[in-house]
Amino acid sequence: MNDQARHSSPNRSGGRAARRAARSAPLADHLRPVRPGLSGGTYAPLTQAGMERIHQAALDALEQIGLADAPACGIAHMTGAGAVLGDDGRIRFPRALIEDTIARANRKVTLLGRDPRHDMDLSGTRVHYGTAGAAVHLVDASGRVYRESTVQDLHDAARIADRLDNIHFVQRPMVCRDIPDNLEMDLNTIYACCSGTTKHVGVSFTEPSFVQQGLALLHMIAGGEDKWRARPFVSNSNCFVVPPMKFATESCQVMELLIEGGMPILLLSAGQAGATAPAPIAGAIVQAVAECLAGLVYVNAVKPGHPAVFGTWPFVSDLRTGAMSGGSGEQALLTAGCAQMHRFYDLPGGAAAGIADAKLPDMQAGWEQAMSNVMAGLSGLNMIYEAAGMHASLLGFCLESLILGDDLIGQALRCVRGIEVDEDSVSLETIRATCIGGPGHFLGSDQTLGRMQTDYIYPVLADRTSPKEWDERGKPDLLENARLRKEEILSQRSAARFDPITDAQIRARFNIHLPA
Amino acid sequence: MNDQARHSSPNRSGGRAARRAARSAPLADHLRPVRPGLSGGTYAPLTQAGMERIHQAALDALEQIGLADAPACGIAHMTGAGAVLGDDGRIRFPRALIEDTIARANRKVTLLGRDPRHDMDLSGTRVHYGTAGAAVHLVDASGRVYRESTVQDLHDAARIADRLDNIHFVQRPMVCRDIPDNLEMDLNTIYACCSGTTKHVGVSFTEPSFVQQGLALLHMIAGGEDKWRARPFVSNSNCFVVPPMKFATESCQVMELLIEGGMPILLLSAGQAGATAPAPIAGAIVQAVAECLAGLVYVNAVKPGHPAVFGTWPFVSDLRTGAMSGGSGEQALLTAGCAQMHRFYDLPGGAAAGIADAKLPDMQAGWEQAMSNVMAGLSGLNMIYEAAGMHASLLGFCLESLILGDDLIGQALRCVRGIEVDEDSVSLETIRATCIGGPGHFLGSDQTLGRMQTDYIYPVLADRTSPKEWDERGKPDLLENARLRKEEILSQRSAARFDPITDAQIRARFNIHLPA
Repeated sequence: MNDQARHSSPNRSGGRAARRAARSAPLADHLRPVRPGLSGGTYAPLTQAGMERIHQAALDALEQIGLADAPACGIAHMTGAGAVLGDDGRIRFPRALIEDTIARANRKVTLLGRDPRHDMDLSGTRVHYGTAGAAVHLVDASGRVYRESTVQDLHDAARIADRLDNIHFVQRPMVCRDIPDNLEMDLNTIYACCSGTTKHVGVSFTEPSFVQQGLALLHMIAGGEDKWRARPFVSNSNCFVVPPMKFATESCQVMELLIEGGMPILLLSAGQAGATAPAPIAGAIVQAVAECLAGLVYVNAVKPGHPAVFGTWPFVSDLRTGAMSGGSGEQALLTAGCAQMHRFYDLPGGAAAGIADAKLPDMQAGWEQAMSNVMAGLSGLNMIYEAAGMHASLLGFCLESLILGDDLIGQALRCVRGIEVDEDSVSLETIRATCIGGPGHFLGSDQTLGRMQTDYIYPVLADRTSPKEWDERGKPDLLENARLRKEEILSQRSAARFDPITDAQIRARFNIHLPA
Repeated sequence: MNDQARHSSPNRSGGRAARRAARSAPLADHLRPVRPGLSGGTYAPLTQAGMERIHQAALDALEQIGLADAPACGIAHMTGAGAVLGDDGRIRFPRALIEDTIARANRKVTLLGRDPRHDMDLSGTRVHYGTAGAAVHLVDASGRVYRESTVQDLHDAARIADRLDNIHFVQRPMVCRDIPDNLEMDLNTIYACCSGTTKHVGVSFTEPSFVQQGLALLHMIAGGEDKWRARPFVSNSNCFVVPPMKFATESCQVMELLIEGGMPILLLSAGQAGATAPAPIAGAIVQAVAECLAGLVYVNAVKPGHPAVFGTWPFVSDLRTGAMSGGSGEQALLTAGCAQMHRFYDLPGGAAAGIADAKLPDMQAGWEQAMSNVMAGLSGLNMIYEAAGMHASLLGFCLESLILGDDLIGQALRCVRGIEVDEDSVSLETIRATCIGGPGHFLGSDQTLGRMQTDYIYPVLADRTSPKEWDERGKPDLLENARLRKEEILSQRSAARFDPITDAQIRARFNIHLPA
């Protein structure tokens, strides 16, 4: 309805009352100010020439340098597709093979939730934020303490993420340090994540021999192998390369088995600029792109069209110490540049953002998480991994920070949504009606009341009170409020838990460490 | 020097030692990883059609709605230039007048520092960050207390900003609440800022009758009216409109006097979306653009080519309460959209970013300040006002936050600098040399060591230690470290203070509240 129609309405006050009532009801999903899968792409750190130069350098690297250390099965797959095994054991990729692979790769990938309302369409520049990583510490924000992370922490993280609107998927963010057996750790990781959330889950496998039991567990959760294969709700975060330019032999074997098992693959190349990747940002992107293109050839040689996420995850070194810095501006640029290369290829892609170097959820954490997260979203990155909760350059995960990250990402998503310019939004008639014979302000106008819900996102925990109100409310502390919300969420039963019969069957077959 | 040349050097170790020595010396300004005036423009929230639609709507608003409340002198100037005074007292602007004004306006504006090394060239998409605002509180971060701000606080803020590399100018961020007389407040504001920093300063004047004495003070600081006019180092932050679409009569009179006095004008339109501007982001931009175009006609009618900054500063209302929210995603979009309109007109422009709604420098403050600051920089905003230290939606200014803001803006500037793609940075030869017969990593390579200083920015206070180191160092607290740096800076003599004779002359003529 345009403003003219509104103003000529014969039942204006009645209409307004009806609209006020409508506003108190929850908004339909398509009217919500932010939602999963909003399209980005307004930020483009690379020029077209820059992207083409990076692409050509990646093709040169694949054709001339190639990758070492592929497993025998992988060599067979890739040489069968047209790659060339050199006397030096490196596999090299002719340009035509890469170009054909890009042309034929699956670009209609949807990563599924156990609940279909959490399905994620990775086409175009649609943006999704979620957790990921392999933190070995749980950060106790109130106590300012780092301690080893446990399977219970991981389950709690999944349960909390399940309740946060702006966390769209749950890739395993923490390692279960209390489970020393690697097979049990991998299986319990699946259990802890999937029993905590019905959003899409990402996990990894330590050894190829663990894959069969992992798939068996997923079949039980799904209610049968056919149901799993129809809607695989877990993807494999697969570090298939050891940068620079070497395949990770065992991870490649895991990948082949999981492709067979119907699991989507995140082709994760995690070089570190200045250490395992070139120090210049462009060079780190070239190498990550080259490695992921090799991975794409590999996946498509095993099974043409298998769903894969182009996972260029270059990280940054603090070159004073060689240590990782995930919270730097250089990291934000690396990730956004990679996102643009995904658009260049029109392939579903993912990278890391939202990492804090800060040890605690302090002001530093806020700026580090915000800068890379908003730039990743604006650049149209399909899957933004490690977007919330991550501290100490990936070594620590913090549940209070995860909760605050939901607010942070909500604002980032609002920025991704952008500025709509149309006849109503340019507001010429509203300005006219306000200034000439009108009230001289826009408070309470139909346009303002209507836009209040559809155009503006309101934080859950971030404080917008005046200093006076803030004082009167006892100066609420952000971290303490996050802690209270954590307790509240964890005090409720998880809606994602398995039905009792399935759960009993799983526990009869596997050694599940979480209490029933 | 390219990699080939490096690798064929006959004196490789000697050359490396020399380069290591060179690295320990300070970098030349043009080699520093970030610096004032880096060019943005990689982020474009509006399409070309969107910008043209906004421009047309602004022209319609100026031609059809016009602005009320111009002072008599302003009416004379603007109607003399071709504007039309209506029977309703509103001045309307024919499209041709606006288009001629845009074509003829001064687009080569340099805002000067008292020290020429702080001059700011506002051409193109060159980006500068600084303080601004009219906070009425000083935020004591350690004590979690808001108290009324004083002239000493303002002077301290200027002294601290003078020492922070990434704060490029000092527009008055706080009001001297301890000086009840408005004339004395205005004069002491000039004194407190200019005796604290040699960077460009921005101030305002409460009444037209105060301008003469303000200029007299500036002439004394400059060493004579001729020296002031040759290098005016203070600009006037002028709220020349009361949105929507009304001139602010007294501010306009101030503006005319200051144009005569040789002071650059910041044409500041500070509507609030949903209250004094339309709620849709596009509509708030339309109104701000229209108002600033009217201001540009006004300035150029008084004195063609007078330096003016196109100050579209629309703010955001939290529409639940009507209160301002400077830390929202909507604010970040508004500011970036305005920056794009400045580029559309190729006019020097400014807007507000970096405002926190958070009361304290906590995680919320970090994400709020980072998101809008980085988006403003990426959009190529020439003057990013209120970029550091601002809390409680502009009501409080915090010196510790200002210091931390320097680190935050350093990272934002790194993002503004962007990704260079050239033969060396794509790193094909470095990757080749590393992987084939090389060490298999990039640590210690010439490229890495060279890029370490020129490509990477290192924070001053932000912590990048591992959890173990952090623990061993006693878990340093970010705010406490900022407080210590504040004390250290304030314990030193200000390099910007006036020479004793000038200072005595100023104090003899004006009632200066700061101790000598």
